[in-house]
Amino acid sequence: MSLTNATPVEAARAARFASRTLAILPSSARNAALTAIHDALAAAKDDILRANSCDMSNAIEAASNGELSQSLIKRLDLTRPGKFEDMLQGILEVRELDDPIGKIDRRTLLDDGLILTRKSSPIGVLLIIFEARPEVIANIASLAIKSGNAAILKGGKESTESFKAISAVISQALGTTEVPNDALQLVLTRDAIAPLLQLDQYIDLVIPRGGNELVRSIKKGTQIPVLGHADGLCSIYLRADNPVDMAVNVIRDAKLSYPAACNALETLLVDEDALTTVFLAVAKKLLEEGVSLRCDAASKAALTSTLDKHLAVLLQDATDEDYKTEFLSLILAIKTIPTSPTPAAAADLAITHINEHGSHHTDAILTMNESIARRFQQGVDSAGVFWNTSTRMADGQRFGFGTEVGISTNKIHARGPVGLEGLTIYRWLLDGQGQVSAEYGAGGKQWKHQALPVEDRDRKYMARDEEEWEVLREFRREKCMRNCS
Amino acid sequence: MSLTNATPVEAARAARFASRTLAILPSSARNAALTAIHDALAAAKDDILRANSCDMSNAIEAASNGELSQSLIKRLDLTRPGKFEDMLQGILEVRELDDPIGKIDRRTLLDDGLILTRKSSPIGVLLIIFEARPEVIANIASLAIKSGNAAILKGGKESTESFKAISAVISQALGTTEVPNDALQLVLTRDAIAPLLQLDQYIDLVIPRGGNELVRSIKKGTQIPVLGHADGLCSIYLRADNPVDMAVNVIRDAKLSYPAACNALETLLVDEDALTTVFLAVAKKLLEEGVSLRCDAASKAALTSTLDKHLAVLLQDATDEDYKTEFLSLILAIKTIPTSPTPAAAADLAITHINEHGSHHTDAILTMNESIARRFQQGVDSAGVFWNTSTRMADGQRFGFGTEVGISTNKIHARGPVGLEGLTIYRWLLDGQGQVSAEYGAGGKQWKHQALPVEDRDRKYMARDEEEWEVLREFRREKCMRNCS
Repeated sequence: MSLTNATPVEAARAARFASRTLAILPSSARNAALTAIHDALAAAKDDILRANSCDMSNAIEAASNGELSQSLIKRLDLTRPGKFEDMLQGILEVRELDDPIGKIDRRTLLDDGLILTRKSSPIGVLLIIFEARPEVIANIASLAIKSGNAAILKGGKESTESFKAISAVISQALGTTEVPNDALQLVLTRDAIAPLLQLDQYIDLVIPRGGNELVRSIKKGTQIPVLGHADGLCSIYLRADNPVDMAVNVIRDAKLSYPAACNALETLLVDEDALTTVFLAVAKKLLEEGVSLRCDAASKAALTSTLDKHLAVLLQDATDEDYKTEFLSLILAIKTIPTSPTPAAAADLAITHINEHGSHHTDAILTMNESIARRFQQGVDSAGVFWNTSTRMADGQRFGFGTEVGISTNKIHARGPVGLEGLTIYRWLLDGQGQVSAEYGAGGKQWKHQALPVEDRDRKYMARDEEEWEVLREFRREKCMRNCS
Repeated sequence: MSLTNATPVEAARAARFASRTLAILPSSARNAALTAIHDALAAAKDDILRANSCDMSNAIEAASNGELSQSLIKRLDLTRPGKFEDMLQGILEVRELDDPIGKIDRRTLLDDGLILTRKSSPIGVLLIIFEARPEVIANIASLAIKSGNAAILKGGKESTESFKAISAVISQALGTTEVPNDALQLVLTRDAIAPLLQLDQYIDLVIPRGGNELVRSIKKGTQIPVLGHADGLCSIYLRADNPVDMAVNVIRDAKLSYPAACNALETLLVDEDALTTVFLAVAKKLLEEGVSLRCDAASKAALTSTLDKHLAVLLQDATDEDYKTEFLSLILAIKTIPTSPTPAAAADLAITHINEHGSHHTDAILTMNESIARRFQQGVDSAGVFWNTSTRMADGQRFGFGTEVGISTNKIHARGPVGLEGLTIYRWLLDGQGQVSAEYGAGGKQWKHQALPVEDRDRKYMARDEEEWEVLREFRREKCMRNCS
């Protein structure tokens, strides 16, 4: 990992060259680099924590002047129990994941002796801009190396000393491995970002992690594809048939388990006939826990007449703007879905509201009616559409990806939590025996276009050839006979 | 298909609304719309050809003033034998393809009663800018409907009358189907493009088909993701071990079967020891067929001393610029790969040249040495890397996709020929029973993250459950025993 005084062009060009070496390293070499980084960071714990304490002192001073928030200080602190060890463990967890590179997911016989193969490969060079959390540098470095991508990293400036210490250790560790040092570059100054965003000949993908404003300004400033999300305006649609306990528990988790998260709940849509039943319990719980409810007229009227007075006085009026706002705090917008001719018609109102006001991140429905749930899941155009569970489940670790580089609301490439797979693309490999295009077509040879079985370590359940497939068919026939007799 | 006088904002908003209806239509309804379009176009053939003849007259007049090329006139002409029927047949072929929407390709048990499913869905609204070829409008309309995407189309202005006639027919045909008319919008004026490119709230993906300049100007003018390719600088690396017949045949096809195509050959890399053997035959053939060879010093010297004089005098000197140029005409740049300590070292020189000078579109190697071919396929960072076949094979129809909207050199989403699959993304559906995020993690419940078998019509070779898998394992054990004994 270089921490150079190179110009942005030099840094990006060096990353591009290094990416070619990294891309063809075998899995074992990439994994060995992760082991080396892990061991080196473990050995250098004291040095790194010393650097971290400098960042902490600076941050505490800035906070006392009101320039920094307490939550940022908390995120900076690598000395909190278990945090350093979690960082180390994360590197090993990424190492243990399946290699995302070199996977074959399609093979087609185009003609005799002409076989088309689709094989996963790294994207190339990533530019990742992230928040002031010291451990993230190790996390992202692991993901980049595992997926065979070079990466240029720029973290929040409040972590500078920690970043410098960690990157020095990683750099030294990489020196003992086959991964080129230039494959990971740490940029310390914000000035470097704008010129880097112009270098689409060297950089393939930008991944900004951070607020709305950061993401928007990056999108404006580059022709390089940007993967990520600006807003996280998540909604839940609550129907009257949902059990009170489940509704309270799920909505509480979605709003309160981490209100500043992108997958936290911002708008609650409530069926009119749920206002004085299940919603009442939800509202009571949320108000008691300090959530401000911004209600439309129908929900406010229903709550005012049923809630205890000391809670009812806390209710606020919603404006149109509230339904387009990602609060990231203890505020929740409430919208009533009027009683409709059919439950499906009511669901369609909720779906339309979400598609027009939401950010296509993650939305959920709470209902015991499966057909309504399926309608909702089909109609809502978001990366995640959940049924009877919390929007906070949208997370790479929870989805079983091991870890994530972020959550994408893009409509192309990777959508939702982005793990190793989202950091790959594929190449089309075509093996021939001298066939040429002009031989085929009108009056010429015909294409066969026959799908061939794929040999892939991830598809252990797959029959490998026609013989095995015949065995399976025979088994299925027998089983069907047994079941039918 | 509307051909409205709507403003760009109105058109894009209408397309967005229509896209939501289209996205949830069943396969049968989308296929029925394709049938209706096919039948209506067949019935309206005379009207459409009349409109086409207006375009032709205008074009012929413009050509006589030197404002249009003969090849453009050829592309405009819908009356050429078989062309109209091919257009109709194309619609039926797209209809017969597998439905790309609603495919489940992953299922994970996150915990008991908490199942994550990944399901394919349309991208939303496409903006497709294409050349003046009247039949392309039907082709793209079919792909859009089949993949559940709304599309705004802008074709080359020379086809305006044909486009208007075809879109009027499509519009009337859609009126009898469940596909909303606004799902396909035809824009006739170039002025509309710039404002449309600003509407990232309505348009999800821009697909420009056309020259380098068009693609670059569109990328500069929008924050919407752009799918396509600017350059198509394809190379072939020729080794001395390749049979003369194969080398001549493949290189001839790559350079001459359609020199203006993006997958045509532009640079030929030749091993030094092939210069006076296999390359000599290739050069002779290309020169005889009118190809200008722009040679480096080594290849020119070798050819000059071995070719007949009347051919040798035709050789030209290559400049550095020639190796970065997409000629799209009968010019080929020749570069010698110097003899190296090992064949792999020579291949690495070719790989490096291609990665630095090429456009990551399609490149090929001609050799009988498999290990060198594999090294080349792993090292070259292009959408297609071919062995012993022509770069011209890079094509959706040849790859078995039925048809394509274009070829992508993007490093994310779809790479290479883009068929229906490239017009889809996925949603993550999570079905729970009230589970919340705060229950899991340190001290709480553990994730199961167990891969579940996927029921998918495309995976007929897959064993469906553990019982079937046991049958397969037993079969494999027995087979192994038989083979070993």
